[in-house]
Amino acid sequence: MIKQIEIILVPHKRGYHLITRELESKLPALPERGIAHFFIRHTSAALTLNEDADPAVRIDFEAFMIKLVPDGDRSFIHREEGSDDMSAHLKASLLGAAVTIPITNGRLHLGTWQGIYLCEFRNHAESRKLVVTIMGE
Amino acid sequence: MIKQIEIILVPHKRGYHLITRELESKLPALPERGIAHFFIRHTSAALTLNEDADPAVRIDFEAFMIKLVPDGDRSFIHREEGSDDMSAHLKASLLGAAVTIPITNGRLHLGTWQGIYLCEFRNHAESRKLVVTIMGE
Amino acid sequence: MIKQIEIILVPHKRGYHLITRELESKLPALPERGIAHFFIRHTSAALTLNEDADPAVRIDFEAFMIKLVPDGDRSFIHREEGSDDMSAHLKASLLGAAVTIPITNGRLHLGTWQGIYLCEFRNHAESRKLVVTIMGE
Repeated sequence: MIKQIEIILVPHKRGYHLITRELESKLPALPERGIAHFFIRHTSAALTLNEDADPAVRIDFEAFMIKLVPDGDRSFIHREEGSDDMSAHLKASLLGAAVTIPITNGRLHLGTWQGIYLCEFRNHAESRKLVVTIMGE
Repeated sequence: MIKQIEIILVPHKRGYHLITRELESKLPALPERGIAHFFIRHTSAALTLNEDADPAVRIDFEAFMIKLVPDGDRSFIHREEGSDDMSAHLKASLLGAAVTIPITNGRLHLGTWQGIYLCEFRNHAESRKLVVTIMGE
Repeated sequence: MIKQIEIILVPHKRGYHLITRELESKLPALPERGIAHFFIRHTSAALTLNEDADPAVRIDFEAFMIKLVPDGDRSFIHREEGSDDMSAHLKASLLGAAVTIPITNGRLHLGTWQGIYLCEFRNHAESRKLVVTIMGE
């Protein structure tokens, strides 16, 4: 059994956003067991799994990642699209465009504290397109 | 054909641990070809693939990642769970919660030098729960 | 429907190389919908998704990643295989050994600007072996 849907996320401000509930609400009925692959079709945003309880974790993510990959690094050659663009590309590859989550008993089988983050790296972001592929039986 | 099992790893000390053999010994019979998805249900540990020959590689991983993401950074807001907690969350997303490995001829089709690492970021770690999903034919 | 093929890439020079077209030309007929899993069987190279338009992005990747993970760090213990070896292992785990891409209407469903990068971390690289697993219907 394979199901595939597209999900469009409204624009989010720069930073890290918990989107587990929003994604779950848009999924079709899940198989008993299998995998769900969430894929973001962009190179200046990412998806990752992390702690879903304390919102401070997401604030710390933004602060840390800015230090790790500074905007507007003067050594960047790719600068036409703004000081947040090349840094966005680098963070997109460090965190990744996709998460794959097991499905067990018809539900996403996340850990107790795991949630899905939308990582938005642009200062003025557009809406974001995801493709979700569900495979199972 | 889909098989799914849970594997519980005993507590490991902080650092990088080669767990390929342990995981392989716990897998059910594999299909001729397909994929195996290994997923860790935690946000302060990770799974990655890397060199399985020289144990020094795993020591260098720990030393490098401590420098990249220092424990107890004074700028962290999320501090209640100890100086190793927020750094653990950041490393979990940089290295990732899952690895997906092709299955060929009924075996994990790793490269000659590739092994599966458990990346344990907590100073006093608990046991860790993995979900392994095998899809193939 | 599961198909699996091995693809051997000729040696590439150190850096980031766009290989989407080459990979697509070697894929078998794809199913209507599903996923394609591209896996590199090495620990000193990686696969990632990023911007495929401006070649400067790939130059900036090399420059940034060298700064993030310097070659020949004097603290590395694993040094026998050259100053580019331990740094290659670290970058391989930060960027990852695999990308999984949705298949929709019989094609890889990448974003408008997304391409597949071969990340070659060795100064004098060998050919690289990929395993591609396609699952769908």
